[in-house]
Amino acid sequence: MKRKVQVGLIGLGTIGRGVAKLLLGRQKELSYGRGFDLQLVRIADVDITTPRGIDLPAEILTTDAYQIIDDSNISIVIELIGGIEPARTYILRALEQGKSVVTANKALLSQHGEELLQVAQRNGTYLYFEASVCAGIPIIRIIREGLVANRIQKLYGILNGTTNYILTKMAEEESSFKEALARAQQKGYAEADPTLDISGLDAAQKLSILLRVGFNVSIPVEDIFCEGIEKITSRDIEYARELGYAIKLLAIAKRLDRFIEARVHPVLIPSGTLLADVKDEFNSVELTGDSVGTQVFYGKGAGEMPTASAVLADVIEIAQKGVQNFSLAENQISPTNEYLEVLPMQEVKTPYYFRFTVVDQPGVLAEIARLLANEDISIASVIQKERHQGGSVPIVIMTHQAKEKAMRKAIDNINKLPVVKAPTQVIRVEEV
Amino acid sequence: MKRKVQVGLIGLGTIGRGVAKLLLGRQKELSYGRGFDLQLVRIADVDITTPRGIDLPAEILTTDAYQIIDDSNISIVIELIGGIEPARTYILRALEQGKSVVTANKALLSQHGEELLQVAQRNGTYLYFEASVCAGIPIIRIIREGLVANRIQKLYGILNGTTNYILTKMAEEESSFKEALARAQQKGYAEADPTLDISGLDAAQKLSILLRVGFNVSIPVEDIFCEGIEKITSRDIEYARELGYAIKLLAIAKRLDRFIEARVHPVLIPSGTLLADVKDEFNSVELTGDSVGTQVFYGKGAGEMPTASAVLADVIEIAQKGVQNFSLAENQISPTNEYLEVLPMQEVKTPYYFRFTVVDQPGVLAEIARLLANEDISIASVIQKERHQGGSVPIVIMTHQAKEKAMRKAIDNINKLPVVKAPTQVIRVEEV
Repeated sequence: MKRKVQVGLIGLGTIGRGVAKLLLGRQKELSYGRGFDLQLVRIADVDITTPRGIDLPAEILTTDAYQIIDDSNISIVIELIGGIEPARTYILRALEQGKSVVTANKALLSQHGEELLQVAQRNGTYLYFEASVCAGIPIIRIIREGLVANRIQKLYGILNGTTNYILTKMAEEESSFKEALARAQQKGYAEADPTLDISGLDAAQKLSILLRVGFNVSIPVEDIFCEGIEKITSRDIEYARELGYAIKLLAIAKRLDRFIEARVHPVLIPSGTLLADVKDEFNSVELTGDSVGTQVFYGKGAGEMPTASAVLADVIEIAQKGVQNFSLAENQISPTNEYLEVLPMQEVKTPYYFRFTVVDQPGVLAEIARLLANEDISIASVIQKERHQGGSVPIVIMTHQAKEKAMRKAIDNINKLPVVKAPTQVIRVEEV
Repeated sequence: MKRKVQVGLIGLGTIGRGVAKLLLGRQKELSYGRGFDLQLVRIADVDITTPRGIDLPAEILTTDAYQIIDDSNISIVIELIGGIEPARTYILRALEQGKSVVTANKALLSQHGEELLQVAQRNGTYLYFEASVCAGIPIIRIIREGLVANRIQKLYGILNGTTNYILTKMAEEESSFKEALARAQQKGYAEADPTLDISGLDAAQKLSILLRVGFNVSIPVEDIFCEGIEKITSRDIEYARELGYAIKLLAIAKRLDRFIEARVHPVLIPSGTLLADVKDEFNSVELTGDSVGTQVFYGKGAGEMPTASAVLADVIEIAQKGVQNFSLAENQISPTNEYLEVLPMQEVKTPYYFRFTVVDQPGVLAEIARLLANEDISIASVIQKERHQGGSVPIVIMTHQAKEKAMRKAIDNINKLPVVKAPTQVIRVEEV
């Protein structure tokens, strides 16, 4: 006799529709050979009249989320409305009633994840969130289960498809940031207000979740250094290419002795590496574990069905484990490593790419080099480029490793030179 | 109060040593925040006197595997001796006594996997085997759990590090197969007898396991078409590169309507794809699921610690689930799709790369083209190369899709032509 596992879905947007398609259209297949029958019994959304291009039995639709949260027959609640409230209230109440929750809500998790996990634990229920990072790439399971015997030492992530699409188009078509952004909006890869993506905040929210899972640290998004791609020009991409690099927006985490680096910003990474070859709207994560070495995972990081696939993986795992199980729930997430602190950005060391815009006259390079040397920043290579408009000329310098603090000071001093005609472009480098 | 989970290890070779290192050296960490304490209580090997470079308490060593299998306190048995017997007997007996088993034994699984899984199921125990394919890349978990809501449609795998290393060296250094093989043996990537690797059999065994997990089909290794890399020359690699392709040994599975393609052989794949960029001894799997689209996974496919990492992931998952659990054990692997049959190789359609060795005289290309046309094989491109030794000259032809059957017939006829001086080189093409 098969157990019935009743599922309620809150939020019938794009992802919600994908989840409903899978749960309704593939119900038999999803339960085949398992000890339970999955049933989607109720869907709540503020709007249940707009056609969604999917046939839904009218009786399962409701505008009242509490018809799911307070229904004692429902054991798994899927939250796909996004945002902080009312999602947080819904999830807390569902967990407190002994229901397990599956969510894709990265904003909520990156702000209130610790609180939600603790409530889940106390109530012997599960809070799963595979869909919150990299959609269908099962990166959370990979870290939590597949690499459980490893200390994760390093993580590089292309976690935001919009910015990766924009940077790819800028590189392939030598278009400006604005043109590429417009293309992304046309294609539906970028929102009308693209700030969340291009500022790096979306990637930082996801990094915060991966830090919790992979490094056992609870780091609020505000503590993750975050810089967007707005200032990247196709000229920088071209110079980087000449130097053997591609420009990507990376989410970076590194375990040091007592500290952890956690930052999101554009970086130059060597051409020909797998990460450099991740094009268009795809996502990728490169992980280094002390036992497995370096692994790379690649796939679509957004979209209706890829994200729905991740939601379903969570739903099925919870259904399989049995729904309320105190001894298991305690294991769902390890306690945090309290002793690991975020390394202040000022202390982070990387090589740098600088593009100076200077007056084309003798001695300029010498002066810049002197100000870099003053801060112990040593030069790895220089490209002096042809003259551009207004008599100013770009000088591109790649440096060896230096602290952010030293770099900031040097660049501040350089920007004050009368021969420097525009603020210096600074992009960090990672030899991934 | 924490449960004690006692573990016994059979086989103290390279992987066994890695597992012992993790279980002994990281015992606290592995149990931290979980509801159990893992304890490695016994290690069996035929040789317990040779130093292994690891400190082991003498009292846990034994030469008698049954001191593990028959110990009622041990609930998880790790089998790392490899080969069919006595591994099969050990595993069956352990499962029948209610123990769960973790193994990396691809030869055994690819021959007797179905029997072992059924015995595990009947006894309410687990048989886990993450380490049998791609070492530390958690590919089995990824398919079974992460992509559970997908129908897997296609799988391409670089599953054998030795052959990938050889092909990489041949490409990078224009060395012959023999030279590259010798390098691989020097580096410890290839055995003294490298047949299992270079024949493709090792990859076929792993494909058989992935077919069971990803496609729910039970296909014995003998039914997987298998061709090795012995006949690949650095000249083929060079011509392929000119045409925009790399040569890789791929394990391929495709779901058709009522059939499944399952084959291992060298293929030309387009340069610049992620799979083409997998170098040296690394492994990679590209999967296409109907919800997630295409995903790629990359990492080390062999070695002491990467493989030990996979073994530990299985041990911890079993410990977490509780050791004997009939309702869960039934879910560990889905029933097979009996209706899916392997498509006979003769019916498989691919494009082809042909390298003909012919007398340099007018009309030869016309004659070859005619014999290809006779079998409805159409030509996509031709490279006629400079003359080589003995007056013979290579002609390289890329074709459009054609059935293996038609290709075989055409090539047989062409090889009989008096102007053809050596058997034609045939390599299949995949537009991954």
